[in-house]
Amino acid sequence: MMTTDELFSIKIDKPDSKTGEKCKKRWDALAKPIDGLGELEASLCRISSVTGRVIPDIKKKALIIMCADNGIVKEGVTQTGQEVTGQVASLMGKGKSSVGVMKGDYPLDILVYDVGINSDDTPEGVIKKKLLKGSADFLEEPSMSPDICLAAIGTGIDAVRECAGKGYGIIATGEMGIGNTTTSTALACAFLKLPAKELTGRGSGLSDEGLEKKIRVIEKGLELYTKGEKITGKEEAFEVLRCFGGIETAALTGVFIGGALYHIPIVIDGVISAAAAYTAELLIPGCREYMLASHLGREKAMRLLLEGLGLKAMIHSNLALGEGTGAILLFPMLDMAANLLQNGTSFDDTKILRYERFDK
Amino acid sequence: MMTTDELFSIKIDKPDSKTGEKCKKRWDALAKPIDGLGELEASLCRISSVTGRVIPDIKKKALIIMCADNGIVKEGVTQTGQEVTGQVASLMGKGKSSVGVMKGDYPLDILVYDVGINSDDTPEGVIKKKLLKGSADFLEEPSMSPDICLAAIGTGIDAVRECAGKGYGIIATGEMGIGNTTTSTALACAFLKLPAKELTGRGSGLSDEGLEKKIRVIEKGLELYTKGEKITGKEEAFEVLRCFGGIETAALTGVFIGGALYHIPIVIDGVISAAAAYTAELLIPGCREYMLASHLGREKAMRLLLEGLGLKAMIHSNLALGEGTGAILLFPMLDMAANLLQNGTSFDDTKILRYERFDK
Repeated sequence: MMTTDELFSIKIDKPDSKTGEKCKKRWDALAKPIDGLGELEASLCRISSVTGRVIPDIKKKALIIMCADNGIVKEGVTQTGQEVTGQVASLMGKGKSSVGVMKGDYPLDILVYDVGINSDDTPEGVIKKKLLKGSADFLEEPSMSPDICLAAIGTGIDAVRECAGKGYGIIATGEMGIGNTTTSTALACAFLKLPAKELTGRGSGLSDEGLEKKIRVIEKGLELYTKGEKITGKEEAFEVLRCFGGIETAALTGVFIGGALYHIPIVIDGVISAAAAYTAELLIPGCREYMLASHLGREKAMRLLLEGLGLKAMIHSNLALGEGTGAILLFPMLDMAANLLQNGTSFDDTKILRYERFDK
Repeated sequence: MMTTDELFSIKIDKPDSKTGEKCKKRWDALAKPIDGLGELEASLCRISSVTGRVIPDIKKKALIIMCADNGIVKEGVTQTGQEVTGQVASLMGKGKSSVGVMKGDYPLDILVYDVGINSDDTPEGVIKKKLLKGSADFLEEPSMSPDICLAAIGTGIDAVRECAGKGYGIIATGEMGIGNTTTSTALACAFLKLPAKELTGRGSGLSDEGLEKKIRVIEKGLELYTKGEKITGKEEAFEVLRCFGGIETAALTGVFIGGALYHIPIVIDGVISAAAAYTAELLIPGCREYMLASHLGREKAMRLLLEGLGLKAMIHSNLALGEGTGAILLFPMLDMAANLLQNGTSFDDTKILRYERFDK
């Protein structure tokens, strides 16, 4: 297993920006207004830089869903009980959870990982990588030991390496873990040095009293493990992750690191995924250049986490479902843009005069 | 042909809100957080109200693209010449314009109409409904005569009636007409009673000088035909449309009216389509309930037009291409939501306890 020193010394490449620039030139040669597809053109250029191909091949797609239980549920921060994690993971294994049904005929492979569900067995159809039966209640002790945290990150990296070997061109992230908007919001508060009151949302639904309790739990956690200073160093970031984070969040952190290692663009979903992405960038600076945002989500911390990563979400649908449901909505949009990039009619093929760029 | 009196007396039904409420109940019965798919759930409920089916059938989809030339191009408000309208329409007829290439294998029928291209012939693959060889330069005379404007609206209504007969469940709107961000922005300024300086954008690309000229042209037009009062009456709205609007914009206005008449949801694309939608609502109040927004676009008038219609755009991608390219991006998102609505696992099918709603 990886040590923290090995984790901190992971080297990643800079994306191939020259190829990204060639991609932009190709966009500008197509018979359409310059920058006509706006952020979609920029996204394809980013994918081009990540993959080193002017016309990236993103046909083969995966969604990696990391599932684990969160000990903090004991403090009464959720509407439902912990058992729902395993129940939904079991539906996921059969393709019958929300994201599996949503995808319908859309060509996408969903890889569900049990990295820490509180059960003896792993549900059918779910990949068994159980590290522990759930994280600890962070008001009692850190969520994870350093070893479990490292193992979870390693599991995420391995998942992407396997996808790379199988030819996947882009990967979306998703999660299932009752209680994980609490653990992720704690991460966001610690990283951004912002009070729980500002960033805490209602997760899958909470009454005003429930929300107040959730805020107090996060506040207590922040008092326990942080000094109220903004986290920037790798060691501190790792400590924040293992003290607050869910096992599934640590595994997703690994997925984002894996994207940078294996040059595969990784799509952020909601707040848990965004917190994992932010952690990955703190642990291995530069990771963010291999990420794409998808949607803005309903949780308050999302906007700031994405801003911190320098990313813009194109989908504003007030989603709060998890499982990667928001991330996969981006795929058909990217497909359509990629169709145009690959097969579009260029000015040279027509009598139409090229548009001129009037940038400032 | 329809008279203005006949147009103004068109009666439309209220959407079937009871069916929309049943749709929401079905969403809430699915094993997922309440309102988890946010605006997508709301969109499906809206479609449900429009079509009168709890689980709407939106599999068969059309994009109606209205093409015409805009006389205002004579005033130098565009980067390219008027001939580009016909050139791009010709590509459209072959499925080789931007939107045709973008759609790729996605199941969608693209119906391209020539309602006023400045050419003797209509390109192959384009439906010939040419009413005139382009609208007039509105600084010289109103864009259209009342009769041409009525005929264009009628063409749009007819297009939707034909789609209704063929079983289309949802229709996106698109347009092609060099100069039509100028004519549409003039419409927006007149309707919203806002100065051209605030609402005018760069269309398909303009230098600072080009933008200044475009603003002055719209200002002059507003001086010619409006008294600076906010337009609310039907007669005034019709006059604004015929004085400023392109023939393609009037035809799209008809498409939105047709949606309300034949209970088919119509998806707004960019600023031209939004101006047409706004006009339709002024002409036949209530039409807006049959509309869906798709993207926010780059043109400044978009946000205010959509706000005026009470609609929210889910896609924020800074698009400025036209042809319906933004509107069709919404389709796969709606498909995925519809998959979940139709085939989702309900709480009753699982051991998972229902979530409780904590609305204020």
